[in-house]
Amino acid sequence: MKTKTIITVVLVGLILVVASCKEKTKQVQKEVTKAIIYPSDVIPFMDEWKILCGDGTKSDSLVNFSKENFFYVENDGETDWVVYKTPNSGVTSRTSSNTRTELGQKAHWIPETGGKLTGTLKVMHVSTTGDAKVSSSYSTVIGQIHSDEGHENEPLKIFYKKFPDHEKGSVFWNYEINTAGDNSGRWDFSTAVWGYDFSNVGTSATSYPKEPEDGIALGEEFSYEVNVFEGMMYLTFKSKGHETVRFEKSLLKSDFSKKADVPEQILNTYYLRGRDGVERDTAYAGEVQYFKQGCYNQANRKSTKSETYGGDIAKQYANGSFAEVWFKEATVGAATSPNND
Amino acid sequence: MKTKTIITVVLVGLILVVASCKEKTKQVQKEVTKAIIYPSDVIPFMDEWKILCGDGTKSDSLVNFSKENFFYVENDGETDWVVYKTPNSGVTSRTSSNTRTELGQKAHWIPETGGKLTGTLKVMHVSTTGDAKVSSSYSTVIGQIHSDEGHENEPLKIFYKKFPDHEKGSVFWNYEINTAGDNSGRWDFSTAVWGYDFSNVGTSATSYPKEPEDGIALGEEFSYEVNVFEGMMYLTFKSKGHETVRFEKSLLKSDFSKKADVPEQILNTYYLRGRDGVERDTAYAGEVQYFKQGCYNQANRKSTKSETYGGDIAKQYANGSFAEVWFKEATVGAATSPNND
Repeated sequence: MKTKTIITVVLVGLILVVASCKEKTKQVQKEVTKAIIYPSDVIPFMDEWKILCGDGTKSDSLVNFSKENFFYVENDGETDWVVYKTPNSGVTSRTSSNTRTELGQKAHWIPETGGKLTGTLKVMHVSTTGDAKVSSSYSTVIGQIHSDEGHENEPLKIFYKKFPDHEKGSVFWNYEINTAGDNSGRWDFSTAVWGYDFSNVGTSATSYPKEPEDGIALGEEFSYEVNVFEGMMYLTFKSKGHETVRFEKSLLKSDFSKKADVPEQILNTYYLRGRDGVERDTAYAGEVQYFKQGCYNQANRKSTKSETYGGDIAKQYANGSFAEVWFKEATVGAATSPNND
Repeated sequence: MKTKTIITVVLVGLILVVASCKEKTKQVQKEVTKAIIYPSDVIPFMDEWKILCGDGTKSDSLVNFSKENFFYVENDGETDWVVYKTPNSGVTSRTSSNTRTELGQKAHWIPETGGKLTGTLKVMHVSTTGDAKVSSSYSTVIGQIHSDEGHENEPLKIFYKKFPDHEKGSVFWNYEINTAGDNSGRWDFSTAVWGYDFSNVGTSATSYPKEPEDGIALGEEFSYEVNVFEGMMYLTFKSKGHETVRFEKSLLKSDFSKKADVPEQILNTYYLRGRDGVERDTAYAGEVQYFKQGCYNQANRKSTKSETYGGDIAKQYANGSFAEVWFKEATVGAATSPNND
């Protein structure tokens, strides 16, 4: 009798516990069965952006939006990442012959009011084909400041580039002059962060410089911060096991307004091809800008002579003719005083 | 023997279930016992702002921030609201003799790049004392565009004002000219949304105009949208049971640049007191601006002759010498094309 009582009590207790537990389990399952994780679930700033994908897909409402094969979420076993992927040949924007799966900031600003963009990412792939003598071969742009008036030039492009035979690639950033007068004389001044800058190219179409020391491998995580505060652009690059690197550049006062100011790097490259401009004195002062972030593939058929398989995207993806970048964290917003860092 | 086995199985089962359930219960309790709901839990845009409270409290990190008696969350039985409350006398900003519990936008912009601010609110209280002949008596400003350079004037102030004996008050907006030359000639042109504009005052310190028809009562919900797109300011005001009202005003080209353009409203008020300026031709073009939102109390001891109880905040709160505004929704961000609305 005593034994039976115990059993009954235990059973009732068990049933109550199981019943209340079931309720909770149901809720948990409901969350799990939410069919798809969107980029906006991983990086919550998506309402601040529009997108152009490598197949020409455009959207200006990116909350709960994804596009198969171009803009979606992958999990690497630890973390959800937003994937930006785009082939060497696809549909391009009005002003470019390069495809992109890239965000464009809705809010616009001028250097004087500024803004801040951050990103933590790993580049998973760049085009494996191209002419080694061309600076933009095997590279993709992972963040930009883009002008929306005048020449619509780019005060900042952050690049990742890796030569085909190398394990490690380079991260560098380019400043495009806001050309005085005709924009046909424009050029990009490039600065290495880790590895080489843009100007380091092969001696022939198929010969590569030696592998950079302190380079960044495909799949290796790094982060950048672009903070334009009161007209000064502050850049910070960080990666575990690498030196943190910082830069400052005024967007209000040119460093390149006289022929005598033009750097050796430019005289040895652009100037030889007749791209021999100088910059307006006030650089990008007062000119409307916006940020871009994602994967702006610099490989194409024309200038880098990269494989494009007649524009067949599936074939390009299957044969290395694409660029792919994964971001796990990113922010966009107001500039911050660099003294508060 | 069989009975004993059953008991053992049941007990082991019970222990396992209880153990796994306890884990979940702990998590649930953790969420519930989160002691306080912050304004940033109600309106998620708080990372875009800093604040100045009516007692001089300042903060530029408003995530999980609240300030008792000034900036906190109230529930009206249905909805959580962010409360902005401030006395007639307290600590003021550098450029004002009025206290405020008000957000200031971190990101700055110019009219050409623009921006958008929205808010859904109810005004719960305005000062019950003051001189009825003074336009700013019994009023509070609930949203602004504020210039950050030049004269630091205000292209937009949205007001709520209610005379002490009235049940219904007025919503109106003021445009302050970006004065040509010396700013001592500046003035505000006021436009009624519902009820009266700023210029409608009492004939003596204690006599009020008749109650406005179609006014807004304390506790009555309404919303505003301020969208500055390509230099044009688009205003939309909505409230259930009231007509939706829209306005457009250029911030790039003045309507008031010649004496002949000065409106009757201004000639009959400011001009009689020697505030007889005109506006620069280009209005606020190219001038850095930011949004403000909250409660900027227009009552004070000096100009509106409102009660301040020697600056004792508890006494002011107990005796109607304060303003209090509740917001339940608000957004700030990029401008949108008015054609997409």
